Amino acid sequence: MDDLLELLRAGLPADALITDPDITASYSHDMASFCEAGAPAVVALPRTVEQVQHVMRTATALRVPVVPQGARTGLSGAANATDGCVVLSLVKMDRILEISPADRIAVVEPGVINAALSRAVGEHGLFYPPDPSSWEMCTIGGNIGTASGGLCCVKYGVTAEYVLGLDVVLADGRLLTTGHRTAKGVAGYDLTRLFVGSEGSLGIVVKAVLALKPQPPRQLVLAAEFPGAAAACDAVCRIMESGHTPSLLELMDRTTVQAVNRMAHMGLPETTEALLLAAFDTPDPSADLAAVGELCTAAGATAVVPAEDTAESEMLLQARRMSLTALETVKPATMIDDVCVPRSRLGAMLEGTAEIAEKYGLTIGVCAHAGDGNTHPVVCFDPADADESRRARESFDAIMALGLGLGGTITGEHGVGVLKKEWLARELGDVSVELHRGIKQAFDPLGLLNPGKVF
Amino acid sequence: MDDLLELLRAGLPADALITDPDITASYSHDMASFCEAGAPAVVALPRTVEQVQHVMRTATALRVPVVPQGARTGLSGAANATDGCVVLSLVKMDRILEISPADRIAVVEPGVINAALSRAVGEHGLFYPPDPSSWEMCTIGGNIGTASGGLCCVKYGVTAEYVLGLDVVLADGRLLTTGHRTAKGVAGYDLTRLFVGSEGSLGIVVKAVLALKPQPPRQLVLAAEFPGAAAACDAVCRIMESGHTPSLLELMDRTTVQAVNRMAHMGLPETTEALLLAAFDTPDPSADLAAVGELCTAAGATAVVPAEDTAESEMLLQARRMSLTALETVKPATMIDDVCVPRSRLGAMLEGTAEIAEKYGLTIGVCAHAGDGNTHPVVCFDPADADESRRARESFDAIMALGLGLGGTITGEHGVGVLKKEWLARELGDVSVELHRGIKQAFDPLGLLNPGKVF
Ligand SMILES: Cc1cc2nc3c(=O)[nH]c(=O)nc-3n(C[C@H](O)[C@H](O)[C@H](O)COP(=O)(O)OP(=O)(O)OC[C@H]3O[C@@H](n4cnc5c(N)ncnc54)[C@H](O)[C@@H]3O)c2cc1C
Ligand SMILES: Cc1cc2nc3c(=O)[nH]c(=O)nc-3n(C[C@H](O)[C@H](O)[C@H](O)COP(=O)(O)OP(=O)(O)OC[C@H]3O[C@@H](n4cnc5c(N)ncnc54)[C@H](O)[C@@H]3O)c2cc1C
Repeated sequence: MDDLLELLRAGLPADALITDPDITASYSHDMASFCEAGAPAVVALPRTVEQVQHVMRTATALRVPVVPQGARTGLSGAANATDGCVVLSLVKMDRILEISPADRIAVVEPGVINAALSRAVGEHGLFYPPDPSSWEMCTIGGNIGTASGGLCCVKYGVTAEYVLGLDVVLADGRLLTTGHRTAKGVAGYDLTRLFVGSEGSLGIVVKAVLALKPQPPRQLVLAAEFPGAAAACDAVCRIMESGHTPSLLELMDRTTVQAVNRMAHMGLPETTEALLLAAFDTPDPSADLAAVGELCTAAGATAVVPAEDTAESEMLLQARRMSLTALETVKPATMIDDVCVPRSRLGAMLEGTAEIAEKYGLTIGVCAHAGDGNTHPVVCFDPADADESRRARESFDAIMALGLGLGGTITGEHGVGVLKKEWLARELGDVSVELHRGIKQAFDPLGLLNPGKVF
Repeated sequence: MDDLLELLRAGLPADALITDPDITASYSHDMASFCEAGAPAVVALPRTVEQVQHVMRTATALRVPVVPQGARTGLSGAANATDGCVVLSLVKMDRILEISPADRIAVVEPGVINAALSRAVGEHGLFYPPDPSSWEMCTIGGNIGTASGGLCCVKYGVTAEYVLGLDVVLADGRLLTTGHRTAKGVAGYDLTRLFVGSEGSLGIVVKAVLALKPQPPRQLVLAAEFPGAAAACDAVCRIMESGHTPSLLELMDRTTVQAVNRMAHMGLPETTEALLLAAFDTPDPSADLAAVGELCTAAGATAVVPAEDTAESEMLLQARRMSLTALETVKPATMIDDVCVPRSRLGAMLEGTAEIAEKYGLTIGVCAHAGDGNTHPVVCFDPADADESRRARESFDAIMALGLGLGGTITGEHGVGVLKKEWLARELGDVSVELHRGIKQAFDPLGLLNPGKVF
């Protein structure tokens, strides 16, 4: 421990190291409930690639585990500390190094906040699509670590689609460059994509080349009320089957709508069982919304309300974005599922989730990136109540089992972390897990990077 | 050898094995010139996953190398046989297993021809974007093996963006399933993308879940003539900087235009130094083409000719698609480069290529996926002329050095194979190559899959 600090100090300025246990404790976990978290020995906040390399060389020399962290908004415990680890927080490496309109790329350090990047590229008429609802807080490094999704993925795809190349500090401190700053490139294995979603277990991302798109027109949103989840999911399928490409297609159930209203007095329709939000950022969004509105009505919508203008549209998006946070106020604690199913099975997924809530006697609010089939059932419970806690965990698991049974995955975008570790093997199977271990061995033979996460 | 055939016969029908050396010889190489190719011991043409597993189990038992093959249209020797190997051709596994409009996916066997899939999904109003110019011949398995690009990638991205999940037979015959059939999924490492572009060195793809898009309106094409490459590249940058998203943006130099005219009497303008093709598949393509036409004129275009209709558009696309084939008629042999540079460096790339042609006294025709910065300088030469052959190889290499110097990659879409093997390490560096070896070791510890390719 003394060795560790002494060696770290040799390559890092004093203000880049935190050892005060009161402060380091605040770096011990991300935003997931019910995940084990240990006490870090030290928190390092490097500002340069060399400093990151120094941390990793020191960790390798002393065989100390390292937990990389962005903004710790993760929802699976993937950034949680282990006892005696070095927490390596990348938040101070937050410079946007380059924005090129001709090449449509941005080059950034990992600590850049997602929304800050969006605004910066927006000034050049450009657009960085991946937009997790946490975008005002979360970092690009964390987005890469978890392979984040968001609201606009139904049209624009997820983080993996936008990462062209990376600079990565490996476990032993060596610097690796992957990918390219060109639009295309197939030289060798796709190491870039291997890092995306690896939850800090293969290396420390210290720079990223990101692909950008031209900024689309401001999107216009429509809200449709449905008497039940089945009808709303039917509408989602009709919309996608008829060849529309909405820029978002989101669902909030009644529990979610009510929670959002309570939190922010949004005046959303409280009597609806399922509120569907659809948006278009096309040249003529009103025409597209009208067509989609008709499909909603045909699927049984009781009301179809296009936003009057972009301000009202933004308000509806705001409501959707605060859904997880609002659901967290229903009970003292939540466990947030992230099951993604084939779009055509979305109705079955939501009905099954309602049955699970019923069976376990719990409130489970659901919001969903419906266009992608990605649901977030939020199990609300009181951790002081042992029986309710047990039921919460069991229903959380039952929801994953349901998703797998429907041909889905246990995680559409939040990652595995510690929360879904046992479930990963069930989804992937033994052969895949063995290959995962082989890859981990090639990148981090001493097993120092984010140990105990993912698999 | 007798052992090999006997064991193979135990699990494969007689008509799935070819041993006649006259026939097996025809499976010895792909379409790249100047790549070493050996004589296969046997060609296996399995029709089922179990048969593929049997081939791999046999190969593992006897330590015989296996070379996977699709249609052998590859341009880097990646599908070339090695002496005594089993050629494992997947062309008989050519069924489209499922097309789902609601989920916007297709599930296919690896031998499905790219254009056959395009047509089949088109009947459901769907669209499989990756469209290499060889699309009437090449297979989805080969497209995945090489991470193929094509004409519409400037708007729709490359093969990697469309592969959601795979079934893969590993070197030892075990079956691995990767990815998901959902729109999103982040459970574990992105093994799917690791296979995309791995050139048959990590496993045999036996099934693929592919993402589809709704079919866009028919595209309308514009042809713009430029007095030089620099002006054409300037136009490309202007188009991309002004936020346009053409559905293709292609370039043919004068050598290419003349070769195409000679081959197919297309009546393309022979006096132009650089012909730029731009297309839009938007709701109002004429308006977009008009805007792009103005940008071309501002960049110095001497003529801007929008196609009259979709038939004329299709004719222009046809001309572009046959460019490589046409350039192959200039001299008895060609070596086709595939350097991709940041779009902003495209002008420098083309000027440098012209200087190289001049220096080595060779004809080097260039066609390019200009919107992606992906150039195909085609070095034309006579292999009977030893000195010209030497100059051809040197200029081929000089073009890759030029591309790397401009911040580019040696291969935008054709892959490494045997043709660019020595160059891969120059691009990737030692650390990356070491990790490549580690990954290969995890997937194929005996080194049986496509030995001697890539790295
Ligand atoms: C209210 C709320 C809404 C959310 N909405 C969404 C949503 O819509 N879509 C979505 O996908 N997620 C969502 N999330 C989850 C979370 O915000 C994302 O997972 C986000 O990408 C995490 O970023 P972060 O900077 O907080 O990373 P952290 O939580 O700090 O870390 C996440 C993972 O990445 C690793 N990591 C971080 N930085 C690096 C680095 N530089 N190098 C290597 N590894 C690194 C960590 O070790 C960890 O494994 C939401 C969270 C909240 C609280
Ligand atoms: C005229 C012409 C134009 C072309 N235009 C383009 C273009 O625009 N864009 C482009 O990207 N390419 C282009 N190419 C190159 C070529 O067509 C592509 O690389 C194509 O993807 C190869 O497919 P294939 O079926 O012929 O594969 P093959 O050449 O047979 O194999 C390619 C690689 O994939 C591996 N492989 C094949 N099947 C499997 C499998 N089932 N499992 C594992 N590995 C497998 C092989 O081992 C090999 O490494 C062109 C080629 C020609 C001749």
